[in-house]
Amino acid sequence: MNDKYPSRLLENAVEAISSLPGVGSRSALRLALHLLKQPRENVHHFTEAIDRLADEVKYCRECMMLSDDEVCTICSDSRRDHRLICVVESVRDVMSIEATGQYGGVYHVLGGIISPIGGVGPSDLTIRQLVERLQRLTEEGASESVRHGMDGPRILPASEVEVILALSGDVEGETTSFYIYRQIAPLGVKVSTLARGLGFGDDLEYADSLTLGRSIVNRQIFKP
Amino acid sequence: MNDKYPSRLLENAVEAISSLPGVGSRSALRLALHLLKQPRENVHHFTEAIDRLADEVKYCRECMMLSDDEVCTICSDSRRDHRLICVVESVRDVMSIEATGQYGGVYHVLGGIISPIGGVGPSDLTIRQLVERLQRLTEEGASESVRHGMDGPRILPASEVEVILALSGDVEGETTSFYIYRQIAPLGVKVSTLARGLGFGDDLEYADSLTLGRSIVNRQIFKP
Repeated sequence: MNDKYPSRLLENAVEAISSLPGVGSRSALRLALHLLKQPRENVHHFTEAIDRLADEVKYCRECMMLSDDEVCTICSDSRRDHRLICVVESVRDVMSIEATGQYGGVYHVLGGIISPIGGVGPSDLTIRQLVERLQRLTEEGASESVRHGMDGPRILPASEVEVILALSGDVEGETTSFYIYRQIAPLGVKVSTLARGLGFGDDLEYADSLTLGRSIVNRQIFKP
Repeated sequence: MNDKYPSRLLENAVEAISSLPGVGSRSALRLALHLLKQPRENVHHFTEAIDRLADEVKYCRECMMLSDDEVCTICSDSRRDHRLICVVESVRDVMSIEATGQYGGVYHVLGGIISPIGGVGPSDLTIRQLVERLQRLTEEGASESVRHGMDGPRILPASEVEVILALSGDVEGETTSFYIYRQIAPLGVKVSTLARGLGFGDDLEYADSLTLGRSIVNRQIFKP
């Protein structure tokens, strides 16, 4: 055998699978051989689900989240507080926050984070859409359609709208937060960010010193 | 959001991806969102490689290995010793043995291992094909086509044919080896198995006692 793989078809499949992040060529081979052992319909079901995701996926025109409809289930839910907009990097973050069951507002999905090294600039994200969304929400001329399910006045005072910047605490996250802050602060909306500190149940001994230091500076009144 | 996923399409893709062995739903979500970020052509290239593998793959009619042609590159190679047949569980084992560069014979791929718990019986494997192959090789009436690239007599004496049972050393491997041995021994071919013992560079201290015990019993003459 001159080549590493006994079959070109196998080689192509292994190459395709190992293009996934975190999947090496050994795992890719294992997965390809696994798929080969499955009934052909199962394999087609597998690839069809992926193709359909790529072909048919829509993004909510309000919050830019993945959605099967024009407007996602969160944005079209009248029980949620549409004055509270949580800005996150990705759909995964929305799912994480939803899983806490602690948040009743809506979201705005950036689709990434500003990263000069990764070649991601502000224009690659949905920051412009966020600004326009806030303008629609707080300024004259807001159309009925943006307000699905919202009770209250047609035009909100900017001071009643709060944008929560829920980005990661690293340099790129901080940079992105700062950039967005400068874009939306002129609109007069309230801007907040996530509380940072020791996690619940964290041991002081194993906390990193930056987190511990900030936890002391930003200490909170003890409420027993 | 009532459902865990913001989109049915995403949910279906995550479900499909997490059906792969060793891929949990969190990794599957990560992979699905990764694919969503790729250009659509890349995703189609990915799924097409997998579909083609499932649809167009062939198996070598001699050794039952994955092959792009009727007969695989190993079986059609006249420089290889066609009297030496190494029986392995899977294509992966062929690739592992080929990677050693130490083996010049041909293979027979079983396509699995006898496993009562896994519901795999002898008839699910290519044992019958192995027996027929040995019969063709050693008995009258062997056709020309089986002998591609073989020099030497048209019909081999059975004693010149050696079958190496290169299966894993666990109970299922041993069971399968024993089953195959009983099927092929009557043909008069030589049957061997892999040498077992300490690996090269292994430390005695960390060897399991079964391996160490067998290494002592099967000790070899020291050739400095």
